[in-house]
Amino acid sequence: MNKAQLFAQIRLKQSYLCIGLDTDINKIPKHLLNLEDPVFEFNRQIVEATLDLCVAYKPNIAFYEALGRKGWESLEKTVAILPENCFSIADAKRGDIGNTSELYARAFFSQMNFDSITVAPYMGADSVKPFLGHENKWVILLALTSNAGSHDFQLLPTNAEGTEMLFERVLKTSQQWGSADQLMYVVGATQTAYIKKVREIVPDHFLLVPGVGAQGGSLSEISQHGFNKECGLLVNSSRQIIYASSGEDFAEKARAAAKEVQQEMARLLDKYLPA
Amino acid sequence: MNKAQLFAQIRLKQSYLCIGLDTDINKIPKHLLNLEDPVFEFNRQIVEATLDLCVAYKPNIAFYEALGRKGWESLEKTVAILPENCFSIADAKRGDIGNTSELYARAFFSQMNFDSITVAPYMGADSVKPFLGHENKWVILLALTSNAGSHDFQLLPTNAEGTEMLFERVLKTSQQWGSADQLMYVVGATQTAYIKKVREIVPDHFLLVPGVGAQGGSLSEISQHGFNKECGLLVNSSRQIIYASSGEDFAEKARAAAKEVQQEMARLLDKYLPA
Repeated sequence: MNKAQLFAQIRLKQSYLCIGLDTDINKIPKHLLNLEDPVFEFNRQIVEATLDLCVAYKPNIAFYEALGRKGWESLEKTVAILPENCFSIADAKRGDIGNTSELYARAFFSQMNFDSITVAPYMGADSVKPFLGHENKWVILLALTSNAGSHDFQLLPTNAEGTEMLFERVLKTSQQWGSADQLMYVVGATQTAYIKKVREIVPDHFLLVPGVGAQGGSLSEISQHGFNKECGLLVNSSRQIIYASSGEDFAEKARAAAKEVQQEMARLLDKYLPA
Repeated sequence: MNKAQLFAQIRLKQSYLCIGLDTDINKIPKHLLNLEDPVFEFNRQIVEATLDLCVAYKPNIAFYEALGRKGWESLEKTVAILPENCFSIADAKRGDIGNTSELYARAFFSQMNFDSITVAPYMGADSVKPFLGHENKWVILLALTSNAGSHDFQLLPTNAEGTEMLFERVLKTSQQWGSADQLMYVVGATQTAYIKKVREIVPDHFLLVPGVGAQGGSLSEISQHGFNKECGLLVNSSRQIIYASSGEDFAEKARAAAKEVQQEMARLLDKYLPA
């Protein structure tokens, strides 16, 4: 999926919601546990119930790896049923020396058919570029994350004047590696103080925004300051939607929770980005 | 395995060699490809041929993930046959928000029985600490990597005087998260100019050193400047050993290549760290 197609979906659905498939075998409804592949069945029903309300799905790979080869199988089956008109994100936070990153790219772009993968920047250009060599595939680079530990290194000053922080340098340097048609950035919803700085450096890029909901970020604030002319935001919600109910009505309740976010998004689009 | 046990193995085997199991289905000898699990069979024979010459094995997880669930199965079987007296390293370079890192820890420490995992520092304390909460398990944190891209961010100045670089800050800050009995650092063999700085900040920690061999680092230089009183180095070699031959004699030739490194290590231990 390219940037124009993604924006078209956002307009069509009046939504920039990404649903995080952080599917934890210990949290899904008990009645699914007798099935052959409970994790996949949970995902299948969540996707079916929400596919008109969101524009992206983001399985967090850790939840699948924690189950070993069985989890990997659930992941492969899940990616295969994601609708074509939804952007798919492998939330993997990978990054290694060049030949190794190329193998991760093969795993997530070829072995599975993800549109994008989240990548950690610490190892620099040659750890990220192999992910950028695949047509119509995207890198979503960690810039300013939503967790408390983001303060440890991401906010360190990286010039003598102390006016540039590490996450800003990551945004600037990485723009030499790929265009706004193949590169997005992770910017946590908890980081509203910095969202203006981010938009000054990367006016045209999409931002993947975790941290709304359970982690405390505000959808309204991040939208007001984060929108660009093509929306430019994918706001993720995981637990708040997929675990809205732990009963047999989980899919229905997930739909209701997604609908609530979507309606708020429709209002914000109408307010800040009228068609 | 704890630090004293690791040092005892180094003394016993006169080796601080780590063999990287970067097992690529496209590079292993052709006669293995008819077997049910060629990747596992390759690893099994490599391990059998080298287990008295090295003190650690390091499967690079990307090589297994690139093969999907089949690769994950080969990885699980490989970890299961690694000898108890060898330190095992999941070279995964993971790191995510707390509850997610905990799941990665579960995947590599519980689902599989790795002694350690490589972790990326960018997301800070709460992304690393979940890996440190497991008894006798280790985090190997990326500090200064062996690739060209290491210059993009790891060498940036992070104080006004320009006297401290990002990798130094990572070394200093992370020492508050865990002790030298549960934390090692990745320092590339290509970074000899900085190894003295590293040792000043972390005199007691083990360093995992990639980049000798194919990437051009010098074993002798890294040993001279990197040794501490308990050796403190695990020097990795992958391609140079496991792909020493592409014929039916691959295990034998891998042993010969490992033996050559081990003998050089015995000389260096004798020279700089006599018993």
